[in-house]
Amino acid sequence: MATTFHGWAARHPGALLEPYEFEPAPLGPHDVEVEITHCGICHSDLHLVDGDWEVDTWPLVPGHEVVGHVVARGSAVSEHAPGDRVGIGWQCGACLACEWCLAGDEPFCPEHRATCVGRPGGFADRIRVDARFAFPLPEGLPAETVGPLMCGGATVWTPLREHGIDATSRVAVVGIGGLGHLAVRFAAALGARVTAISHSADKEDLARELGAREFVLLEEGALRDAGRAFDLVLVTVPVALDWPALARTVRPRGRMAFVGVVPGKVGVPVDALILGNRGIVGSQIAGRARMREMLDFAAREGIAAIVETFPLEEVNVALDRLRRNEVRFRAVLTR
Amino acid sequence: MATTFHGWAARHPGALLEPYEFEPAPLGPHDVEVEITHCGICHSDLHLVDGDWEVDTWPLVPGHEVVGHVVARGSAVSEHAPGDRVGIGWQCGACLACEWCLAGDEPFCPEHRATCVGRPGGFADRIRVDARFAFPLPEGLPAETVGPLMCGGATVWTPLREHGIDATSRVAVVGIGGLGHLAVRFAAALGARVTAISHSADKEDLARELGAREFVLLEEGALRDAGRAFDLVLVTVPVALDWPALARTVRPRGRMAFVGVVPGKVGVPVDALILGNRGIVGSQIAGRARMREMLDFAAREGIAAIVETFPLEEVNVALDRLRRNEVRFRAVLTR
Repeated sequence: MATTFHGWAARHPGALLEPYEFEPAPLGPHDVEVEITHCGICHSDLHLVDGDWEVDTWPLVPGHEVVGHVVARGSAVSEHAPGDRVGIGWQCGACLACEWCLAGDEPFCPEHRATCVGRPGGFADRIRVDARFAFPLPEGLPAETVGPLMCGGATVWTPLREHGIDATSRVAVVGIGGLGHLAVRFAAALGARVTAISHSADKEDLARELGAREFVLLEEGALRDAGRAFDLVLVTVPVALDWPALARTVRPRGRMAFVGVVPGKVGVPVDALILGNRGIVGSQIAGRARMREMLDFAAREGIAAIVETFPLEEVNVALDRLRRNEVRFRAVLTR
Repeated sequence: MATTFHGWAARHPGALLEPYEFEPAPLGPHDVEVEITHCGICHSDLHLVDGDWEVDTWPLVPGHEVVGHVVARGSAVSEHAPGDRVGIGWQCGACLACEWCLAGDEPFCPEHRATCVGRPGGFADRIRVDARFAFPLPEGLPAETVGPLMCGGATVWTPLREHGIDATSRVAVVGIGGLGHLAVRFAAALGARVTAISHSADKEDLARELGAREFVLLEEGALRDAGRAFDLVLVTVPVALDWPALARTVRPRGRMAFVGVVPGKVGVPVDALILGNRGIVGSQIAGRARMREMLDFAAREGIAAIVETFPLEEVNVALDRLRRNEVRFRAVLTR
């Protein structure tokens, strides 16, 4: 008996999404089938739909901030029982045997597989994925707001943890959007003194409510006035900024961290790095241990994304609002 | 009775050095007076002489890889006795009270003072400096070759240690010159697998003698073939290279580290950093604890610079050879 899943897909790069029925890959021994209740929308989904990353699999069903319930499982799956609530993020597979996987750094695995690249993602009624990348969701994380933690939350959590951010730290979050608003919440919950940096003066009140202690409006000279202030400058914007000026706000031994793709090259004069042993780093989602840590911490501290929800059928409206940078702060599709 | 020191100074930017007599600053309570026997020449000395760094103190006596004997000491000095052999590097002073100084990070002190900036340096018969920045030299480090360790050696030692280089590490040293040849020796002595990367095929034999296990000739495609190979890529050259290609040779979690000023901006596409959580960092000389550690390790492992010596009177010949990149591998002035 053929199984049919119902999703929304782009037929070609840049297309509006249309209803799309497809037969899923067979349920492998390590797989679970998840009935999806919610799926967040990430900027990466837009890049995929627009064909920016040359991932040539069309029709393309986006979605990698998936929340749902297990409805079936393969013969080798012991982690989840039917009915269990799980979340799925960007990564849906790895070899689990290489040096990186063994160290909990599954994102670096050469066999890294992505939830909606080359296979249908979460803008659908169901999904089949490797159970080892379907994370049990702690109670207390609301279904509507937990989706964005699976990619956006993990993405900002990793650099905070890898750079040892704690209550003695000074953290700047650049950009108060889908990623940035979660970064402010997480950093503040870790006890850090958080400075929100934004082009939008109207973000100040919200940034403070989220836990920022300072707000810097990105305008001429503002970064210069900030001095060498931050142990970590977390850049969450998808646009080019004055990177040398931003690098100079980093304290000695501090880091400017990128979690999203910005256009062009990130360039700074090397003396801005040498003086004070400063650095520029990138960070890519989260390994499985880090993902569980993030979910547990979010549940314990009551950290949730601020979302706008859209019925799955209105996915094109949601994508359009995201494209125009109007979503406050993360769009979530519901079924 | 007036005291007179005899040095060699540039009278204006770009000038040849001339004999220069000067009255030293009074010997402060924390100072020692050192009779200089040797002084290494660093690229920074050339930058100072050429006025590249807009340090407007002329006549300018360069020199910050100083080796000599204590001949007098201030009332508060207990570290050194007359006759003790000491070395002096780039930094000759700091507040010793700020957060950075207290943590052994004296290079980051806002009151950082440099040995030959705004005060006469080591191209002279004597120097007066804060005794706390005159380092006792372990026996077994030859006077002729230890000078270059005080700046060049410290400069490459710091990133090797700060990035945890040990016998499990893979290190690339880019440029086999004054800094690079010391970096290969130190990294190999720490047990790392070292790859020397150079534009000059004729450096291969020497690089292997110094401890490199691999040699990569910098030519079209060579870096691409290297793959993601290195935990640390230590850039010791003063010229611009293909930074994106070099960044892509860094393993996940690895770093490309700059220890010297290269022209222009160091720019890479941000995805080269995000994929694998890689980074670009700078590193600036060494704190006092790190300096002692480096000297002790060099003595224990018999690590010395390969030098060409020149009588102090031939300083202009030495500077000219350095300018033409002909020194193998560090010039040292002797008296």
